[in-house]
This record gives sequence, structure tokens and C-alpha cells, in this order.
Amino acid sequence: MTDPLRLGVVGLGRAFMLMLPTLAQHPLVRLVGASDPREEARRQFEADFSRPHLPARAYASLEQLCADERVEALYIASPHQFHVEHVRLAAQAGKHILVEKPMALTIEDCQAMIDAARRNAVHLMVGHSHSFDAPYLRTAMLIRSGSFGRPRMITAANYTDFLYRPRRPEELDTSQGGGVVFSQAAHQVDVVRLLAASAARSVRAVTGRFDPSRPTEGAYQAFLTFDEGASATLTYSGYGRYDSDEALNWFGEMGRKRNPESYGAARRALAKVSTPEEEAALKNTRAYGIAPSAIGSFARPAAHNHFGHIIVSCEKADLRPMADGVMIYADDKRWLEPLPQPAVPRAEVIDELYAAVRKNVPPLHSGEWGMATLEICLGILESARSGNETVLAHQRARGPVLGGGL
Amino acid sequence: MTDPLRLGVVGLGRAFMLMLPTLAQHPLVRLVGASDPREEARRQFEADFSRPHLPARAYASLEQLCADERVEALYIASPHQFHVEHVRLAAQAGKHILVEKPMALTIEDCQAMIDAARRNAVHLMVGHSHSFDAPYLRTAMLIRSGSFGRPRMITAANYTDFLYRPRRPEELDTSQGGGVVFSQAAHQVDVVRLLAASAARSVRAVTGRFDPSRPTEGAYQAFLTFDEGASATLTYSGYGRYDSDEALNWFGEMGRKRNPESYGAARRALAKVSTPEEEAALKNTRAYGIAPSAIGSFARPAAHNHFGHIIVSCEKADLRPMADGVMIYADDKRWLEPLPQPAVPRAEVIDELYAAVRKNVPPLHSGEWGMATLEICLGILESARSGNETVLAHQRARGPVLGGGL
Repeated sequence: MTDPLRLGVVGLGRAFMLMLPTLAQHPLVRLVGASDPREEARRQFEADFSRPHLPARAYASLEQLCADERVEALYIASPHQFHVEHVRLAAQAGKHILVEKPMALTIEDCQAMIDAARRNAVHLMVGHSHSFDAPYLRTAMLIRSGSFGRPRMITAANYTDFLYRPRRPEELDTSQGGGVVFSQAAHQVDVVRLLAASAARSVRAVTGRFDPSRPTEGAYQAFLTFDEGASATLTYSGYGRYDSDEALNWFGEMGRKRNPESYGAARRALAKVSTPEEEAALKNTRAYGIAPSAIGSFARPAAHNHFGHIIVSCEKADLRPMADGVMIYADDKRWLEPLPQPAVPRAEVIDELYAAVRKNVPPLHSGEWGMATLEICLGILESARSGNETVLAHQRARGPVLGGGL
Repeated sequence: MTDPLRLGVVGLGRAFMLMLPTLAQHPLVRLVGASDPREEARRQFEADFSRPHLPARAYASLEQLCADERVEALYIASPHQFHVEHVRLAAQAGKHILVEKPMALTIEDCQAMIDAARRNAVHLMVGHSHSFDAPYLRTAMLIRSGSFGRPRMITAANYTDFLYRPRRPEELDTSQGGGVVFSQAAHQVDVVRLLAASAARSVRAVTGRFDPSRPTEGAYQAFLTFDEGASATLTYSGYGRYDSDEALNWFGEMGRKRNPESYGAARRALAKVSTPEEEAALKNTRAYGIAPSAIGSFARPAAHNHFGHIIVSCEKADLRPMADGVMIYADDKRWLEPLPQPAVPRAEVIDELYAAVRKNVPPLHSGEWGMATLEICLGILESARSGNETVLAHQRARGPVLGGGL
């Protein structure tokens, strides 16, 4: 007999849409509340999630949602800049918290969120990020088994069309948390930290703004060093050209098979709008409560979520997380450690949240974890600006689930 | 009517074997002399290259070869540590010089070689390196056309079995020029410098020694910055596990189609030897004058030489050098700029040497060019040792063929 977690959602926007298949299908969670300023989103939410004896209630304000005593935990998926205030309110109301990445835009805000959760004795988790993806968790477990020696060198490269997906103006303004460093390095750094299995020490980086019409970081390269002597190179480009899904057998970020012939689709779609207002309107057509409800029509993904091409060179083998398993390149042979087809995408997020709230298992993706990842994202911006290596100061918090230095 | 260049070879070892198909087949070169301490190599050389009215003469010493007045230029393919002395002797004898990479083991030696060549008014070139490969030269020309904007971000990754090919003991001793930084970064850095099209400023790196039985650098990661704001990440592993030829449609470094099923072959072959002497003997079975002569039996390579997976993100397109052309990923479409199948592998080395000696065209791969590449290789070792970024000082020499800052 399971007793699903009763979850509230703060912000029925894009992040919620991406988590919808998980939240609607995972057996250990029930959506019982939400807050959003948009009336059509609230109406849709109540229609989609109300069950006999368990109505789903959507509110115009977070305060109202916090007052709903049925809600045990809140998934805070509001725009980045509101995270700190929303976490504070949630913690004060005694709700456990899953806050979307990036956790916040400053270290001070991260610390304030951690303090608020501690003061109110609630669990604070940060995610979804792709470091929850089964291929990375499985690779991390393989590394921690000790069979392959220590991880020494990680190459991570992701080439996507991120910058040409429809955006609101603030998503193209770095000072408001826009651009690929806040949105995408938050994933890539999280994954690399998980795989490096020791604390990061330093970051050297360069960022790229190649398109004046999208005036935020669309690309970056970063070089990380770690306590135990490991290093990592991270490359990200969101300019919609070379596509690293090629290296993942054309499984896309969401674990679905892609058509390699659809080259340039994001740019072509975006070329039809000519003003920021039109672009925001285009984005809005996909919004929850406006696009037709997807409830009941989720296709089971063929494979797992992923975040691009990654090779972890350990002392005794190279490990390569793929969408359907982990390729292991040992001295004498190579093989795929297969992962089962996911029943529900991103199930690992709910698994970890449920274990924290119900079984008091300290989460891997804790507030300290999220702050350490944000520090590296901020370090990427800082190093690119200064031309110097940035030494890191918030990386040594112990992560309880997968072991030391996380 | 061509008048082929009359070339002498200093050292009939492994580097010569790799250049043999080029030297034996390129219509603009004739091998007329050689020096090597091994008698069987000298005998083979005279048998392979003597022509009516143009005997090939092999000598036991470089001094004798330098005294052969028919020789116009010398290809110096002796072990790394002898390059500086051999270049000095060759220059004093008035011979133009092509010296193998790495040019030398110290900046002082590079400078001495450049000075010797200048004093004696001979051309000094450094190569073969993979930056001579047609796919990279073509990519560099495409970049310099201006059609794709400036190069901003380069990702270079090469995963090979370098460390498990049979070696002499000094090839596993970094102080004697062994390991992948001297031997392989010399290629990768050269290629990246060519593609970045501006002078490098700094290098941050970590090196890896994962196998105590091969006690030299078998892997490295480096982060380079360049004058015009570009950056590059370089990853190399010679540990024979993940194989980046996968990203080049299984064309190998020499432009031949590989069998992906031959996983682990280098380690398996090496596992049969148990002492350094046996390993040197195994290497020796492939040596010139011992292995059956390949003259007359060279297969035409299906594609060009290459040095792994490389993506150059320019402001307006990503360019990806492949073994058979250059993939261009533009905003609206992607396509392959095909390269013709090479008639002779590595022909570009002789083309550049011939143009220098016969037409006085200053070579791209000059002594200054080679010194700049070596400085970055030394910077990789230094940064890995110190844990700090290394600022570069010898990168601003003007390269005359492909334009500024090279």
C-alpha cells in the first residue's frame, strides 16, 4: 500500500510542462494544489488533477497554496528570480520543497533558502536537473563500486538549439537569469559534479554571445578541476547547428527518438515571429491551459533523459552514459550495461523527493548540492568576465546519498 | 616539367615509416640520401630508392649525408632529443630542413634551431603534424573566407590506443620527450591553433598517468584561450578504451577504414611481451629494413589523415573536419564540403616544403610556428604540475601563408 505524496506546484509554466508527464504518472505523487496568476492554467489544473475525494485546488497566490493543509511538499517552478522568496514562504508554511534549477541567481539567495529550510525543519531539494537521469545515476554507482578506478577526466559536450526556442524577454537577459549558463550549465555542471565524485576546486571558462539578436550567453566552454586530481571540460552551444544527439544514437534530451532530417527546425519556427511580443505569444501557445491538455496521452519514452555526449575516463575504463544504458570501455572488451525502458520519465526526481519526505533519507540534490552547482555557474560567468581562473569555496558539503564530497 | 626536390632522410625509424607512402609516391620529391646507424635500414633504403642516373645513398652518419651535395633538403626524423643538434648540422651544411614534431623539448632548443636556419639562410619547417591534413587546411581556408564569422569555440577530443603501441623505453619517459603531451598534443595543439586563427594566450591543463606500467602521460585535458576571445578544449586519451574514430565514420588517423570490432587489439598484442627489451624487439619487427619493403604496394587511402573529433563553432556556423571533407552546419542547412580522395597521403607536407625550397614561399609550418606549438605543450605539462594557468609568450609570430597571428 503506497501513500502518495501530496504535492503542490508553484508556477504552471514551462518547467511544470516538462515535468508534467512525471507528475501526472508517477505512482508516488498526487498533485493536489497549484498557484499561478493565469486563470486558464488554474482551471486546467483543477480539471486535470481532481480525483474523487481528492480535489485539486489551484490558487492565484502562493500564500493561498501554502495555507492548503493537504499539501505536504511544494514543487517551486516559478521564474528563477522568484525562487528565493517562494522557498522562504514555503518553508515558513512547513512544506517540504523541490525547487527548480537554477536554484537561485546568487550564493546569498541559495544560503538564505538553505537556512529557511533548516530553520523550519523541511527538506529542500533542487531539481529537476539532468543529474537525476538514470544513465548518470547508474554511471555514478558504477564509479562508486570501485571496479573501474577513480574518475580522472570527463568530457561533456552538448550542442542544442536552446537559444532559438521561443523565449520571454527576461530569458534572454543574463541579469534576470537568462542565457545558457543559468539554464543549461545548471544541468551540465550538475551531471559532471555527480560523475567526478569529488569536490570541484576551480573553474576557468569563456562564454559566447554569437547572435546580437539573442543578447545573452548562447555558448560556453569551461574547464573544471577537482580535489582528487580529476578534471573536466564542458562545452555547450545552443546555437542550433552541430547536434550532439548524433553521439547518442539520435535519442533526444527527453529520451525520444529524433529525426535527424529536421535540421534547423527551431530557427525556422522562430523566423516567423518578428517582435519579442510575438515570440512570447508563440511560447504562450504551448503554455499549460492554452495548449490542449496532454493528460492521458503521454507516450512512454523509448529511453531515458540525457544531457549530451559525456565520456568519463576512469583509471581502468571509460564510461559513457547513453540514453538506454551505460557503455563501458574496459581493457579487453566493451559492453552496454542496459537500463530498463523508463515507465515514467524523470521518475528519479519523485523517488528522491518521496524518500526524503516519507523516509527522511537525506536527498543527494540538497540545497547545499544546488548551491555548489550554482557557484560553478556563477564561476563560469565570472571567469569569462575576468579572464582568470575562479577558485571555488562552497563545494565541500557532504552529500549523503552517493557518498563524500558531493 | 617538374624538377622534384632531392631529399635526404635523417633517421629511418618510425616517423620515416609513417611518411614513407608520401615520400615514395609524391611526384615532387626524390629520396636521394639517408643516414641511420642501422645497416639493414641503409641497405633497404638504397635498394628501395635508387633510380637510373640517381642512386640513393645511405650513410652511417649525418655528417656524411650533409656532405652529399645532391641533397637539397633534409627530413630530420631522428628521436626528439637529437633534433636540435641535427638541425644545427643540417643548417650549417646549407640544407633546407623539415624536422619532425615535436620540434624539440625546450623553447631554448627551438630558438637555437630557428637561429641556425636564419643564419644559414635555409627554410626550416616542422612536420608532419596533423595540421597539414587536408580537412584542417580546408576548414582553415573556409574560416578565413569570412563567410562563417570568427571562430569562437573549438572542441577537440581524440581517444586512441597510443600508449599501448610498442615503445622503446625512452618513449615512456617524459624527460626524454615521451608520453602523449610531446607526441600527441603536438598534433592536437597544432590543429587547434590553425583553426583558431588567432594567437593563443593561456593554457590550463591537467595530465593523467593512469597505468603505472606505462609511467608517462597517457592522457590530458587542456583549456586554451586566444587573442580574439576564442577558446578551445582539448582532450586526449591514449589508453585504448573509448575510440573517437566512431565520430569520424570509423576512418582512422591514416585515412583508412577501420574495423570497429577489433576492440582492444593494441593491448592484446602488447600483453604478449613481458619486458622492455621484448617490447623494443616487437617494435623493431616493424622497423624499416626488417619488415618487408612496402615500396610498390601502397594502397591508396580511402580518405584523409585526421586527428580525432573536432567542432569549430564560428559566429555563423559550426565546422566539423571529417576524413572526407568538412561538414558545415549553418543556420538553415548542413552539408559536406567534400575533399577529393587523396592520391598520396600527407601530400600537403611535400607541397609546402617544395613551395618553400623552390618558390621561396614562406611556410605556414615554420620554426616559429613549431616553437609556438611546443610552448603550449610545455605549458600543458607546467600547468598540470603547478595547478595554475600558464600565460604564453611565444605565440605572436606572424604566419605568412594562412594569415595573421599564426
